Amino acid sequence: MNTRIYNVNILTMEDGASMFPGEVWVKDDTISYVGPARDNGDVVWDKEIDGQENLLMPGFKNAHTHSGMTFLRSYADDMKLDEWLNKQIFPNEAKLDGESLYWFTKLAIMEYLTSGITAAYDMYFYMDDGMRAAKDTGFRYVFCDSINNFGGTVEGVERDYLRLNQDKSRQISHRIGFHAEYTTSRELMEGIAALADKYKAPVSVHCSETRKEVEGCRAHSGMSPVAYMDSLGLFNHGGTLFHCVHMDETDYEILKKRGIYVVTNPASNLKLASGIAPIEHFLQERIPVAIGTDGPASNNCLDMFREMFLVTGLQKAVCDNPEAVPAMEVLKMATVHGAYAMGLTECDTLSEGKKADMILIDLKQPNMQPIQNTEKNLVYSGSKQNVKMTMIAGNVLYQDGVFYLDCPAEEVYAKANLLARKILG
Amino acid sequence: MNTRIYNVNILTMEDGASMFPGEVWVKDDTISYVGPARDNGDVVWDKEIDGQENLLMPGFKNAHTHSGMTFLRSYADDMKLDEWLNKQIFPNEAKLDGESLYWFTKLAIMEYLTSGITAAYDMYFYMDDGMRAAKDTGFRYVFCDSINNFGGTVEGVERDYLRLNQDKSRQISHRIGFHAEYTTSRELMEGIAALADKYKAPVSVHCSETRKEVEGCRAHSGMSPVAYMDSLGLFNHGGTLFHCVHMDETDYEILKKRGIYVVTNPASNLKLASGIAPIEHFLQERIPVAIGTDGPASNNCLDMFREMFLVTGLQKAVCDNPEAVPAMEVLKMATVHGAYAMGLTECDTLSEGKKADMILIDLKQPNMQPIQNTEKNLVYSGSKQNVKMTMIAGNVLYQDGVFYLDCPAEEVYAKANLLARKILG
Repeated sequence: MNTRIYNVNILTMEDGASMFPGEVWVKDDTISYVGPARDNGDVVWDKEIDGQENLLMPGFKNAHTHSGMTFLRSYADDMKLDEWLNKQIFPNEAKLDGESLYWFTKLAIMEYLTSGITAAYDMYFYMDDGMRAAKDTGFRYVFCDSINNFGGTVEGVERDYLRLNQDKSRQISHRIGFHAEYTTSRELMEGIAALADKYKAPVSVHCSETRKEVEGCRAHSGMSPVAYMDSLGLFNHGGTLFHCVHMDETDYEILKKRGIYVVTNPASNLKLASGIAPIEHFLQERIPVAIGTDGPASNNCLDMFREMFLVTGLQKAVCDNPEAVPAMEVLKMATVHGAYAMGLTECDTLSEGKKADMILIDLKQPNMQPIQNTEKNLVYSGSKQNVKMTMIAGNVLYQDGVFYLDCPAEEVYAKANLLARKILG
Repeated sequence: MNTRIYNVNILTMEDGASMFPGEVWVKDDTISYVGPARDNGDVVWDKEIDGQENLLMPGFKNAHTHSGMTFLRSYADDMKLDEWLNKQIFPNEAKLDGESLYWFTKLAIMEYLTSGITAAYDMYFYMDDGMRAAKDTGFRYVFCDSINNFGGTVEGVERDYLRLNQDKSRQISHRIGFHAEYTTSRELMEGIAALADKYKAPVSVHCSETRKEVEGCRAHSGMSPVAYMDSLGLFNHGGTLFHCVHMDETDYEILKKRGIYVVTNPASNLKLASGIAPIEHFLQERIPVAIGTDGPASNNCLDMFREMFLVTGLQKAVCDNPEAVPAMEVLKMATVHGAYAMGLTECDTLSEGKKADMILIDLKQPNMQPIQNTEKNLVYSGSKQNVKMTMIAGNVLYQDGVFYLDCPAEEVYAKANLLARKILG
């Protein structure tokens, strides 16, 4: 299958590259050419897409989410994190089953597509059903275990790790992880650390989301969550830490030493009143930051444009510095760093040999005009409305407001409503 | 002209009203019926719109903007407010002319339509050309003078006030205003106060946007900007204050006593590092708050959905209270309070006798599913992508991504690019 996307302005997101007019060729699920328009020689096109001078760039990577939580959207708002978890989230999650999870995940995938998100790093239950939703829709998915004292075993994580990393196409992959320091015993964490050592693998986990969590860890260990988990050997092979709102100088040193990726979730952190992560400080320390939407129960939407504006807007205000976190850094977080934070090193840039995960951004909308600095327009004024096409592994899954999935959009909405009502009553 | 919009879920935004299924009738520019589906008697429909069970509600009111600044979008980012104003904004604004302003305003109007904004409260130069842009497109516009020490006279404001309030259809109206305390002499402000007294009219002005502005006013007057301007008699007949980021207890008392409307501009205040306005406190004090995008040079987009999320999200974080500023309060700010803040008392709710300024919100999008609480969905997960139709004065100006204006969208983009390049070089 040979596809040509021509008449586009290309932003590869390679280091130092700026936008240029050209075309991109795709062979099966891989990019085979990126550059100026050129003769196609003996290549026969199965599909040609006229980009109409719009912007082609790598898809956004949602580096932290709980996709299946769509069923709790706008159901449990305006509550404190611990109350929210214990009263509204945990009891209703207990009623989930694989079939529900399948449809709730499909709904999330559709929303990702409308926001130009081509891969998600998901931490949730019923991974096999989530995987089925990703496979059926053609979405790229990375799973991460969320075991804790209430469920899951180290052996189970190892089985998942071996089982879910067999997909040669890398549409589905898996990384070692657990829920959080405050929900997981030392023994379980030591088991995870041993597993990470065995496979020389990084560990992903929620970390320092709330002040209460950090204080709790200090009270029992005398250390911050980052330092305590590091002392158990969890980050010997790197890691990806979700949230990182409340950090100290020791934390920064550990993040740098271990080559850890931070995933920031600004909308969720605002909405749950968790705080504002020190993104400008991470940048100054050269700690790589990726961006996640977090789950739809806390956010409540899955919109990379909103997150991108928040990442820079909030830092400008809290640092009292309008120069904080420039637009191009935010785009790097949403694409390149996101890919690395979830282990998708083949999905970071729009370059020959990389996976064909890309988006076409409509520049012929009032919010993108006049065209003076498209990168800044994307971060400061972009919206879901600008996503003209979302392509994953060479397949167009969303174009001009229409979904190209294995079932009609209406079926997903109907199932999601029905199953949500069944759970929530 | 009789129009019927049927098969919709209606949110009137009247006090205490919740969503219900029904239909809305429009006669010319006015709503003639809101309620359950019913027999149309002898009314003959010129137009019938099937709402497909989506949400019909009053259009959003952008209660503070500088529309013509679209030409500076993504041109002058990442700078401090005073530097931004003096180095990038003022010198380029000096090169504006009426013809440029006309096209830049048209571009802004198009963006308003994509975001469900049906009226804007605009403070900028060349009001006659802005008015022409509004008249030609069918947009509802309220103008406010921005005189200061660098231009404009009290006599000019009076002439504008009399001249621009003659439109019986209320598509165009005008309110007395000036730029800001820190740019305007005491003499000029006293003149404005006398004018406001003469017409028993409220005064609109930028106020307490930055800490520096407040400190400057204290240094020369011993009072905050609110108190100083009030002491000059400016708010004897009420007022509308844009920004109100840095406030004290005395300010709150004056706002309450004078029945003043606050217009908050959260995205602009973040981006220029001005701070975060005390919205939760305004609510507690029962001071009415409206929402504005501010101009596209500071924001950089004109998107009421982004502003609505910020209004509540930021308060939850800074008040450390996830219950701060509930969704329904935000919707009131974006509609009812917005209308009152700009004097459009006939455009606040979706009710019989009110102007037919309304929007149809697409609920059949993944970010609005499942349907559990549509009001919360709107504020917490809504986006421009959900705006299916924008109607002003009974006319559909935007529907399913297509603009219905006096000229093609492409012509506005071409003119805006050409004229921006001419000014910026």
